[in-house]
Amino acid sequence: MAIRKSINRVDAVEKVTGGARYTDDFFEREMLVAKVLHSTIANGWVKSMDISEAEKVPGVVKIVTCFDVPDIQFPTPGHPWSVEASHQDVADRKLLNQRVRIYGDDIAAVVAEDEVAASRALKRIKVEYEELEPVLTPAEAMKEGAPVIHDEHPDNVLKHTSYTVGDPDAAFQKEGAHVFEGEYETQIVQHCHIEPPISYAYMEKDRIVVVSSTQIPHIVRRVIGQAMGIPWGKVRVIKPYIGGGFGNKQEVLYEPLNAFLCTKVGGRCVKLEISREETFVSTRTRHAIAFKTKAAVTSDGKLVGRTLEAYSNQGGYASHGHAIVANSSNAYRYLYQDEIGLKSDAYTVYTNICSGGAMRGYGIPQVAFAMESQMDDIARALNIDPIEFREKNCMPLGYKDPFTGLTCYSSGLLECIKKGKEHIGWDEKRKKYANQNGPVRRGVGMSIFTYKTGVYPISLETASSRLILNQDGSAQLQMGATEIGQGADTVFTQMAAETIGFKLEDIHIISTQDTDVTPFDTGAYASRQTYVSGMAVKKTAEQFKAKILDYANYMLKISVEKLDICDGNIVDKENGDVLLTMERLAMEAFYSLDHSVHITAEATNHCKDNTFAFGACFAEVEVDIPLGKVHIIDIINVHDSGVLINPKLAEAQVHGGMSMGLGYALSEQLLYDAKGKPLNNNLLDYKLPTSMDTPDLHVDFVETLDPSGPYGNKALGEPPAIPPAPAIRNAVLHATGVAINTLPLNPQKLVEKFTEAGLI
Amino acid sequence: MAIRKSINRVDAVEKVTGGARYTDDFFEREMLVAKVLHSTIANGWVKSMDISEAEKVPGVVKIVTCFDVPDIQFPTPGHPWSVEASHQDVADRKLLNQRVRIYGDDIAAVVAEDEVAASRALKRIKVEYEELEPVLTPAEAMKEGAPVIHDEHPDNVLKHTSYTVGDPDAAFQKEGAHVFEGEYETQIVQHCHIEPPISYAYMEKDRIVVVSSTQIPHIVRRVIGQAMGIPWGKVRVIKPYIGGGFGNKQEVLYEPLNAFLCTKVGGRCVKLEISREETFVSTRTRHAIAFKTKAAVTSDGKLVGRTLEAYSNQGGYASHGHAIVANSSNAYRYLYQDEIGLKSDAYTVYTNICSGGAMRGYGIPQVAFAMESQMDDIARALNIDPIEFREKNCMPLGYKDPFTGLTCYSSGLLECIKKGKEHIGWDEKRKKYANQNGPVRRGVGMSIFTYKTGVYPISLETASSRLILNQDGSAQLQMGATEIGQGADTVFTQMAAETIGFKLEDIHIISTQDTDVTPFDTGAYASRQTYVSGMAVKKTAEQFKAKILDYANYMLKISVEKLDICDGNIVDKENGDVLLTMERLAMEAFYSLDHSVHITAEATNHCKDNTFAFGACFAEVEVDIPLGKVHIIDIINVHDSGVLINPKLAEAQVHGGMSMGLGYALSEQLLYDAKGKPLNNNLLDYKLPTSMDTPDLHVDFVETLDPSGPYGNKALGEPPAIPPAPAIRNAVLHATGVAINTLPLNPQKLVEKFTEAGLI
Repeated sequence: MAIRKSINRVDAVEKVTGGARYTDDFFEREMLVAKVLHSTIANGWVKSMDISEAEKVPGVVKIVTCFDVPDIQFPTPGHPWSVEASHQDVADRKLLNQRVRIYGDDIAAVVAEDEVAASRALKRIKVEYEELEPVLTPAEAMKEGAPVIHDEHPDNVLKHTSYTVGDPDAAFQKEGAHVFEGEYETQIVQHCHIEPPISYAYMEKDRIVVVSSTQIPHIVRRVIGQAMGIPWGKVRVIKPYIGGGFGNKQEVLYEPLNAFLCTKVGGRCVKLEISREETFVSTRTRHAIAFKTKAAVTSDGKLVGRTLEAYSNQGGYASHGHAIVANSSNAYRYLYQDEIGLKSDAYTVYTNICSGGAMRGYGIPQVAFAMESQMDDIARALNIDPIEFREKNCMPLGYKDPFTGLTCYSSGLLECIKKGKEHIGWDEKRKKYANQNGPVRRGVGMSIFTYKTGVYPISLETASSRLILNQDGSAQLQMGATEIGQGADTVFTQMAAETIGFKLEDIHIISTQDTDVTPFDTGAYASRQTYVSGMAVKKTAEQFKAKILDYANYMLKISVEKLDICDGNIVDKENGDVLLTMERLAMEAFYSLDHSVHITAEATNHCKDNTFAFGACFAEVEVDIPLGKVHIIDIINVHDSGVLINPKLAEAQVHGGMSMGLGYALSEQLLYDAKGKPLNNNLLDYKLPTSMDTPDLHVDFVETLDPSGPYGNKALGEPPAIPPAPAIRNAVLHATGVAINTLPLNPQKLVEKFTEAGLI
Repeated sequence: MAIRKSINRVDAVEKVTGGARYTDDFFEREMLVAKVLHSTIANGWVKSMDISEAEKVPGVVKIVTCFDVPDIQFPTPGHPWSVEASHQDVADRKLLNQRVRIYGDDIAAVVAEDEVAASRALKRIKVEYEELEPVLTPAEAMKEGAPVIHDEHPDNVLKHTSYTVGDPDAAFQKEGAHVFEGEYETQIVQHCHIEPPISYAYMEKDRIVVVSSTQIPHIVRRVIGQAMGIPWGKVRVIKPYIGGGFGNKQEVLYEPLNAFLCTKVGGRCVKLEISREETFVSTRTRHAIAFKTKAAVTSDGKLVGRTLEAYSNQGGYASHGHAIVANSSNAYRYLYQDEIGLKSDAYTVYTNICSGGAMRGYGIPQVAFAMESQMDDIARALNIDPIEFREKNCMPLGYKDPFTGLTCYSSGLLECIKKGKEHIGWDEKRKKYANQNGPVRRGVGMSIFTYKTGVYPISLETASSRLILNQDGSAQLQMGATEIGQGADTVFTQMAAETIGFKLEDIHIISTQDTDVTPFDTGAYASRQTYVSGMAVKKTAEQFKAKILDYANYMLKISVEKLDICDGNIVDKENGDVLLTMERLAMEAFYSLDHSVHITAEATNHCKDNTFAFGACFAEVEVDIPLGKVHIIDIINVHDSGVLINPKLAEAQVHGGMSMGLGYALSEQLLYDAKGKPLNNNLLDYKLPTSMDTPDLHVDFVETLDPSGPYGNKALGEPPAIPPAPAIRNAVLHATGVAINTLPLNPQKLVEKFTEAGLI
């Protein structure tokens, strides 16, 4: 048994000893460095640029401005490509933009012998702008006569989608139904992956090689081809170890510019490293989304109908486009069931702030805050226990979504709630904290969520892998899917060992992807890899095993049906007797004078299914009302992610997600001034939780066996970040009676709200 | 038609612009350098070593001596491994040798921060030797009581083989047969590849990665595993562009030591570069072989019987063992047919000079010198035209070797002779130069040869390759076989394009081999790649084409039989109409929501055949008798290598081989003093021909269609180096009447011989 096992990460030693090689650890002959010039206005045009002084800086090799780039608009998100134009991503930016849409837009780049020369040159470039008034929120941007950010969208609305289930209007007419309205709003946060975006590029023959810290090497290859207008096969992308991405590296940010710059210096190697400050401003963030909710509920707490309006602040560029708020709006439909009807409207609106993009949870942390706050507000008003209320209305096993056909094949949701409830001592504490006075009060709150596994059927799910037998009976496992810190290489290794019948140490996974030789896979996102790519591993391993057994049959003259592989040996299926070591088989296969064959296997998994993962978060807080400070006394995430391939790594994933959720709940927020200039784009002023801010994080699981998962497994990567914020918000509500409907719950906001509420 | 086409090398631009990246062009973080300490005696033991002073040198990280290495003897030659112990290569050396067998043996290594520190440290290592009298020639080494070089071989004879065809004794009894005896001897030369051996090694997880300039990456992997006593799967070998090898890099020389050293510094990266001077002394050379020949011939010039004795000077280590002189002795059997019988004895003898190893021609240039000199000597004595004499006795089409079953499927030999004869103006000049006087005389001479294609059936021939379709309809071709400067990447590209039906520019060959992901192939040697690996390309391409046509069938609903691929388009087999571009097919295959499949193909060719290539060289020389100088007036090689995949590259191969043959004939010789110390191990004193020494080289071909070759092709890589030396020797004989039976024909030797002959 190689799965359901808490083995150490296969890359643990490499990473703790510093042996693991990241993009910045590689060198090339006479490597040049590039730096990007960013706009200092949030909306307008670059009228002219004077680079004459910059070109005089010793060590400067080449300066490229927004007037020198190909007139090609290209899409940047890490989505599988669609052959149908209508499903393709929005192509709304160039390598460098003369039309400036955010403060920090890319308008020029300097290539120099070293960083000092490049930085000096940047300062000497004179830019003349024509400035427009920036609009920073969907509300402003949708106003009549607001400045148009993209001509293709005169109303600044990138997209508006709407759906209706049943008859929502009738729902709100229903006799005796109580109607609740609410408004909830989330803030802008940033991924803050440890390793900022970095890449280097050089030419090999007539092809461009880009080494990059990315979650999606095969998509980077495609987008570089699109951005430069060259055949995709002329591009080769290599992904070394990477220091986190959380969705920000599921976007093709600077690789195309890097590739273009190397072609401008005769194919010499150019390295482009994006600083932390640039990363906050010029890469991607989590969208701020404003939600308006309305619900009709019977006195005994059954949801009759709901409406949702969601306004997503997209910022200056489409990035993942409408997909993220659409995901929010769909999740609103999945998790709770309405007796009569539901209506949802979702808007993605261009503004002049930093573009929102993919970030762990992909729209669900936002809607979960709205929806789970709403549920608590309703339960409170109806004086029903929030858990009871949720249990009454949440998705049942077997649920089939009317639009997508997504089906709930397995659900441990109620079990998760039960476990969390017990851990936190729900019933007792809900009573105990019911009527408190004084400046410091306690409360318990909870929230639940569901999360899809991969992107089917909205878009393509396809993945391949390859196995290669070595002479010593070990094997290389080559994955298109990517290790980005989450432990993918480790679980893929376990899956391969499990299915072939090899020892874990005899699977050598290749962590570096190289689009020239690595099987195709769209990459690390959407919590898809253990599910979609995992099935590719399983298929490949089955094929590999079959080829090995065929060869064993050739050597032993025993029919394949009577043979199996166990611990890397060919064994008698009946009694498990070892008939042949894998080394002997491999040596014969390589060097036989009669029948030499090099045993490898390669398979594609075109996945046409999806499944729901679930979970709940329970939090106990102590609120210091005068200080506006929330102290987490206890918090637990309980997850149903199906079968756990590696429980220890699963727990680590949840820890990471929870700490992200804590920052989202209590402290993180990227702020802008009135002109759209970021105010705190650094890790001093941007309040990422430190270890000092982090309580003990408790984790539990409910292991269901999902019939659609390769090993009964389903999504785990993103979910942990979803439920903490609403659970904490609901705990604060329980402690103080004050409903905070915007994130984060930081001291400034709490003091304001408590003052309004007369607690201070 | 992509083959039989003189396209430019696919790596031409890379190489002339300096873009091509060789081992020394790569860098790693905090790379260390290693240098080797070589023995200053040719025979004996290292009694003790004092490294205390060396360790004090600033920058020295680690010093490893012959007392610190694993007690493992390993084999170094680049032969396919054999699972049968009796066929395995001789394992007669350790990573560092305490028992010293050559001057320049490896006895210690220093790892330091830089070359200066390493060199300083080398000088400070004090070595105490116990010296034995060195033996430098087979004659000395085989003497009673000669010092034993390897205990396993008390008589210093590594191996002696003998074969008999028919009844040679009877042949020499034959009535009226003339008996001729001769002695011929060749010198020691060195490959002199532009790029000396270089590698670097580091650890990745628990595995060792070695980047090396090698002809045989997969074999390097195996030998490192053997030398260090670790599983072969724990070793990864990467081969960048390489600057020539000619057989010297068909041996695993310093990679195992490099790998071992990196494990001694905690897996840090260590680079080991071997200097030109070290390369001459401590790598490999072409064996000096002494031949004794005897022949019985009828008056009208039919060979009745022959005997051959060959003594090969192996030097201190077995390297390729007996294989090379065995190849000489077999070729003696193939090329000419004896009416009654033939007997051959071949000896490989250990001595205390630099070890002989694989070098372009693998024993055939030596025996060709002996055999072709012998044939001219006999023809001259019988007053028969040398061509007529050869035509009477040479291998006929359909010849089948009694021992190996090797069959002559195709032969352009007589055609080659005809073309050469016409080019040189044979009949007229043989007459014209018949009776000359004076100090400067002219002559014409010729020689012929045959050469096998690959190593079957003596050992395994197996090769694999892989093809990967890109979105733009281009493909990567991944070969286990290696480009070493000979143009393999170019002809493989042509073969793939030819068989699939792609445009040449749409095949992106991957020139770098990485044993983790590259299909298995034993490597570049034995002129095997276009024949053995070429068949792997053909099989893979056929599989790849079939998969593409299957997908075309899915898209077009037209049966595969009606479809074909032409210029990268799916066409109607009947009328050639384009039905689908490859780009459209590929995009659909990648991104289809119904049927996404990543089209790749991988196949193994286990080759169980072989075939004979042929050729002839004709030379016209002018000999300045008092100066002992031979001036080449005209020279031509005419080859039958079957179908030429790329005529221009074929011609280039012949140019390279001919210039090697010229050096072999006239100037090159590695010399030793009485103690076995090399006297001219540098490119100043070792007389490699320069462009000044090189006449116009004429090349012609006779294209036969060999039924066993993948595209009708057969061996070409090595043959060109074979015939020039005997052709020139025979031309000098024709000019002066003096038979020079030892190589090279340099001024010193010629003046001696001409003096003996009374010409001076």
